[in-house]
Formats: sequence, structure tokens, C-alpha cells
Amino acid sequence: MNKERFEKQLQFILEIDKEKNILRQTHLSGHGRRENDAEHAWHMAVMIWLLREYSNEEFDLAKAMMMALIHDIVEIDAGDTYAYDAQGLATQKEREEKAAERIFGLLPDEQRGELRGLFEEFETYATPEARFAHTMDNLQPLLLNNSNGGADWREHGVCRSQVEGRHKTTARGSKEISEFAMGLIEENVKKGNIRDE
Amino acid sequence: MNKERFEKQLQFILEIDKEKNILRQTHLSGHGRRENDAEHAWHMAVMIWLLREYSNEEFDLAKAMMMALIHDIVEIDAGDTYAYDAQGLATQKEREEKAAERIFGLLPDEQRGELRGLFEEFETYATPEARFAHTMDNLQPLLLNNSNGGADWREHGVCRSQVEGRHKTTARGSKEISEFAMGLIEENVKKGNIRDE
Repeated sequence: MNKERFEKQLQFILEIDKEKNILRQTHLSGHGRRENDAEHAWHMAVMIWLLREYSNEEFDLAKAMMMALIHDIVEIDAGDTYAYDAQGLATQKEREEKAAERIFGLLPDEQRGELRGLFEEFETYATPEARFAHTMDNLQPLLLNNSNGGADWREHGVCRSQVEGRHKTTARGSKEISEFAMGLIEENVKKGNIRDE
Repeated sequence: MNKERFEKQLQFILEIDKEKNILRQTHLSGHGRRENDAEHAWHMAVMIWLLREYSNEEFDLAKAMMMALIHDIVEIDAGDTYAYDAQGLATQKEREEKAAERIFGLLPDEQRGELRGLFEEFETYATPEARFAHTMDNLQPLLLNNSNGGADWREHGVCRSQVEGRHKTTARGSKEISEFAMGLIEENVKKGNIRDE
């Protein structure tokens, strides 16, 4: 064991503990407290494994799961940007790049490269793994929010074009899951949980 | 898409959201609030990926990660049993078997079998994946607790033989990480964080 290398790995592992304190807008099922990034990533990774049969393309399971597990780590520095916050979205990329530099920079060189690579791949939808991970990133809060009677949408006055806009990327990973998602959105528009323009 | 199959998968996915409410004895780094099972599993899966080079044996990455992600799901019904709670440990197996039956039973048959299989494999240390996942299951709270000056050990009056006993299984997945863990335990005994009998 190279002690210096191992110490770097442990430093990163301890640093990412902070992701458990980054809160999302989504509430847990039962409309409990807000969900945090680590919980969301855990849920996504389990879903990737369970729902892989619906992916449009074959993909590497471990790679997609790891991508999901780390895709929000930059929010330790950059904070969570709500999917429908236009102002926050404008500066998101710059804030997240800087965070990736610092946080992945704690790792030994080659692992820093690997994790930055996975993060960039995810952001740019560059691979089947990235596309399916995004499908899960969209489906997971949709399921929770739907289970809560759309409380998060109603609280933020979210309208149909916003939700459908976000879910445009869902089909890139899975046409089948996208169809299901669009149906669920439609249902929630009908129930008045999502505003119809 | 087989709707009935997909609905079963979604039902399971929504059910396991409850794991985010199962609290462990371990506190987050910085001695914040107690950690929950989903956060712990997320952390373990990232660690499996990052520290795989220290495993005694070659193993399947996606399988080990999924095993880590689901190993505590039974605690949704059975509750968390503290590693040093002798009374709780006596009934743990029975409570967890019952929980596995119900919760994994929500899935389509073949996925129920897969997940129960992974869970049993983990419990019995039957494979390299199970052994390395256990190494992470032991290392993760050790790192957090050490970062908090051993507050969790002190609070429970934990003694050396208890911690060393638990870490006997650490070496089954990684001799190198076990050596590191034993060193960290020794340090915490010297500091008075762990009671020396």
C-alpha cells in the first residue's frame, strides 16, 4: 500500500461526507423532510441496476452507477440548483467546474481524472451511461413528487412546459421510461398539481 | 414494456425511500446529526469503487456496489441494530429475514431472487464481493467516528475488544485496509476514545 495515495483517497472519502448536508427541493415520500444529495444518488444507483432493461442502449453498469453516485458531489461547494431556477442555472456551470477542480483534486491524479471524466460525461450526455443516468436523475424526483400529490410542484408554482422541458432528456436514456414519465406529468396536470398554461 | 412488471419495480423503488429515515448510531463528520442507512450505503458504494485496488481478491464491481447499496434495506422493517448491542444482535437475523421476505417480495420474481441472493451473500461473506463490501461497511463508520474524535465510542463506552472484534472481518476483504484500521483503533485507544480493558 502506498500510504500517500491511500491518505489522499481517504481525504476525498471524508470530504464527500458533506454531500449528506446538501438539500434538494424534493421531499421524501410521505412529504417528510427535504431529500439530500447523497440519498438521491443512492436511490438513482439502485434504480440504474433495477431498471437497466429499459435503457435504449447497452451500457456498463458499474460505470453508470458510479456516475450517478458522484454526479452531485460538486454541489458541496456549488450548492443545489433547482431545476426551475433560471438565475441559478445561468451561473451553475462555472460554479460546478470550480468545485470539481477542488474536490476531485483531492484524489490521486489518475482517480481525479477518472472521476472528472465521469462527471463531464454525465453533464454532456456523452455516453449511454450518461444518458441512462440522466433518465434516473429525472425519474427519481418525479416518483417522489408524484407520491406526495405534487406538493413540490405546487409549492413552486411549476408549469407544464417546465416539467416537460426537463423531461425531454428522459427519452435520450429510455424511450419507454420517458413515455411513462410523460403520462405521469399529464395526470398531474389534470389533477392541478402542475399548472397548465 | 410489461406494465405489471414495471409497476412492481416502481413500488419497490418507492418503498425503499423509507431507508432514508433509518438512523444509525454513527454521526456525520463534524459530529453533526446521526447518519441514515441510505447515506451510509451511498458512501460505501463510492468507497468500493475508489478502494477496489486493496481488495484481497478480484471482484465484480457492479455486483459489490449493488450489494452495498441494498444491504441495509431490511432495516426498514427490522430497524438498525447497533454493532455493540448484544440483545439486539440475538434477534437480528430473524427480524431481518422476515423483512427481506416482505420488501424484496415487492419486486418481480427474478429480481426478488437476485436481490435476496445479494443480501444473503453479503450476510454470509460468501463471495469476494461480500467480503470487500463488509470491509467498507466496517471502514466507513471507523473513518467518520475517528474524524469526530471518537465521540460515538465514548458515548457508548465501547471497549477495545468490541471494536477489534468487529474489525476481525475487515481483513477478509482487505488485509491492507485491516492493518490500517487496526492502527487507527490503537491510536484511539491511546487517546482514550476507546476503553482499554
